[in-house]
Amino acid sequence: MTYQARSFKLPALEGLSEKQIKVHLGLYEGYVKHVNLIMEKIRSLKEVDAEGNAYLINELRRRFAFEFDGMRMHEYYFEQFEDGATAMNQNSPLASATVEKYGEQGLIAHIKEVAGSRGIGWVVVYSDPKGGTLHTVFVNDHELGQLAGLPILLALDLWEHAYMVDYVPAEKKNYIDAFFANLNWSVVEKRFEAK
Amino acid sequence: MTYQARSFKLPALEGLSEKQIKVHLGLYEGYVKHVNLIMEKIRSLKEVDAEGNAYLINELRRRFAFEFDGMRMHEYYFEQFEDGATAMNQNSPLASATVEKYGEQGLIAHIKEVAGSRGIGWVVVYSDPKGGTLHTVFVNDHELGQLAGLPILLALDLWEHAYMVDYVPAEKKNYIDAFFANLNWSVVEKRFEAK
Amino acid sequence: MTYQARSFKLPALEGLSEKQIKVHLGLYEGYVKHVNLIMEKIRSLKEVDAEGNAYLINELRRRFAFEFDGMRMHEYYFEQFEDGATAMNQNSPLASATVEKYGEQGLIAHIKEVAGSRGIGWVVVYSDPKGGTLHTVFVNDHELGQLAGLPILLALDLWEHAYMVDYVPAEKKNYIDAFFANLNWSVVEKRFEAK
Amino acid sequence: MTYQARSFKLPALEGLSEKQIKVHLGLYEGYVKHVNLIMEKIRSLKEVDAEGNAYLINELRRRFAFEFDGMRMHEYYFEQFEDGATAMNQNSPLASATVEKYGEQGLIAHIKEVAGSRGIGWVVVYSDPKGGTLHTVFVNDHELGQLAGLPILLALDLWEHAYMVDYVPAEKKNYIDAFFANLNWSVVEKRFEAK
Repeated sequence: MTYQARSFKLPALEGLSEKQIKVHLGLYEGYVKHVNLIMEKIRSLKEVDAEGNAYLINELRRRFAFEFDGMRMHEYYFEQFEDGATAMNQNSPLASATVEKYGEQGLIAHIKEVAGSRGIGWVVVYSDPKGGTLHTVFVNDHELGQLAGLPILLALDLWEHAYMVDYVPAEKKNYIDAFFANLNWSVVEKRFEAK
Repeated sequence: MTYQARSFKLPALEGLSEKQIKVHLGLYEGYVKHVNLIMEKIRSLKEVDAEGNAYLINELRRRFAFEFDGMRMHEYYFEQFEDGATAMNQNSPLASATVEKYGEQGLIAHIKEVAGSRGIGWVVVYSDPKGGTLHTVFVNDHELGQLAGLPILLALDLWEHAYMVDYVPAEKKNYIDAFFANLNWSVVEKRFEAK
Repeated sequence: MTYQARSFKLPALEGLSEKQIKVHLGLYEGYVKHVNLIMEKIRSLKEVDAEGNAYLINELRRRFAFEFDGMRMHEYYFEQFEDGATAMNQNSPLASATVEKYGEQGLIAHIKEVAGSRGIGWVVVYSDPKGGTLHTVFVNDHELGQLAGLPILLALDLWEHAYMVDYVPAEKKNYIDAFFANLNWSVVEKRFEAK
Repeated sequence: MTYQARSFKLPALEGLSEKQIKVHLGLYEGYVKHVNLIMEKIRSLKEVDAEGNAYLINELRRRFAFEFDGMRMHEYYFEQFEDGATAMNQNSPLASATVEKYGEQGLIAHIKEVAGSRGIGWVVVYSDPKGGTLHTVFVNDHELGQLAGLPILLALDLWEHAYMVDYVPAEKKNYIDAFFANLNWSVVEKRFEAK
């Protein structure tokens, strides 16, 4: 099997230019391409000489998470903008869970706090059904620090390419405001209910 | 909330001594303790001075994945030995999925291949419901290279502490054989069906 | 002691705008500030309660390399532009060493190859006096994959912030051309001779 | 060129068995072998098809630091035991520098503190000639968090294989005591003076 690049039904976004989104989608497609490339390279190296190429094959596998997570995280990201911004439903199970964990101040304030982490990567909100709680962490690159086996509810891209067409790094907060201005919370609610 | 260390109903294991398992369970409990410690430290640093401690808090959060994944991966590991070894049910959905992906040679041979990766960490088998496939990767440490958002089916610990009470590193293959000799495949099958 | 942000005598650069350099120098100063912040935080946490804060202190230390290498690598980077571009002296010891290692095609072609690595980070050229050779590697972030104990000869910044004021990621090659158009090779030669 | 595994003139060591050292030296030789393997694989992949193999080649290069640092760090480690234990010369430049940085309590107490970091890796003491100071950090694996371009003075291996022939992880402190009982400080002094 091969993975296909998805297309996203994106409305015009507030505070994120068409050029920014186009550049970003181009990078997403690069991840899909390289996920497939790794799987294809492993196949052909094994066919030629599985034993002699064992080191090569295992190094490709080690890198697979970078490309796969790069692909998948961008899918979580862009689908959050599909169909336009909606507010969080204050009566949803997600709303109850976030208030229990993050108090009245709420999830958005918490994500903004975590987004202050230095370096590039993602703020990711997970659900831990076994622990009956949520966790919000900063993941470096795409694959360094993902929580093992947990479903992902929300993904905020903080690589510089996510905003530097429109903003300089010192304006990262404006980008984060734009992210939330465009977020379709019903996508996040559905992920929480599907977990 | 705090996480509690689980206890596992482990039979006598073939090729893994009681001392080895006791040492290993002690390390698992250390991860649970440190998951709770990080959550507690973040709480108290925020209460004292959220702004002045922002850098500290974010660095604790960055490390959370190491401790959380260290805890959770060991839970995946030990529960695979509960109730004693059983063979894979050749008529199960898991068996179909593994044959489709890994051919007649099968999943065990594939895991052994990936276990040849250099360094310490885990071989992890994931299910990707969106892609309709399985992925088997080597995760460094506990948290470097986890596949984002994917349910975990099987976890083989390849840290040196997992076997060095009983084996030296050059005998790693014997440890891996012991792992499979004790594996309760019905645990893996249930994970696949629950995903 | 505290580290001081250096100022660099930069001429007008070809293909790199003043705004790009200003943004980049601002980020460099952030690294210097955070190197000092970590040292200061460790000091004060130890004074208050060395034992109770041991976990916190060690996590700050683990992150020190990110900030320190972020500071130091940018110093290697910017000082390469000081006093304006000069060609490599073909009779220098550096020229002999690079021809021996990288052939007639040369070091620049080799760096461009390594710069094709996916992800963000640095291309770094090191000298290994013990091995009597050069090594050119891609370092992720600032600190993931530095060669232990080796003097650094040349550092090419491939974080997106290094060029995205002037270029989009698909134009990274133009940025790399600009880097070489502005490189003062005599700085690199002096580093090689001082090792 | 290829790297050659070094042999070390090791006396009988206190608290570290012959079997422990033999196992550990065997792992060291594995790093040397794999440094050469990567260089050889890159050469042959380039000869066959430099462009078509570009992704493979760059992933091998990304992993080079793991193998190279694994080789070099073990060389720093074992040569510290050559010719038997000697105390630090209290009149040496190293002694002055360590007292200035680490106070009366001294470098050994400081290294033990840093050795309390969770995870596997190394405690490394560096000299920073530009900053006129020493830095002691915990490096994960062999290559994650090395300080860029700094000469290495002392390297304490905290991978589990370094001690688990003789000790369980809960006895790590006994291993660290054994390390210092066998340390030839004159090796460290010479590194400091050569920097």
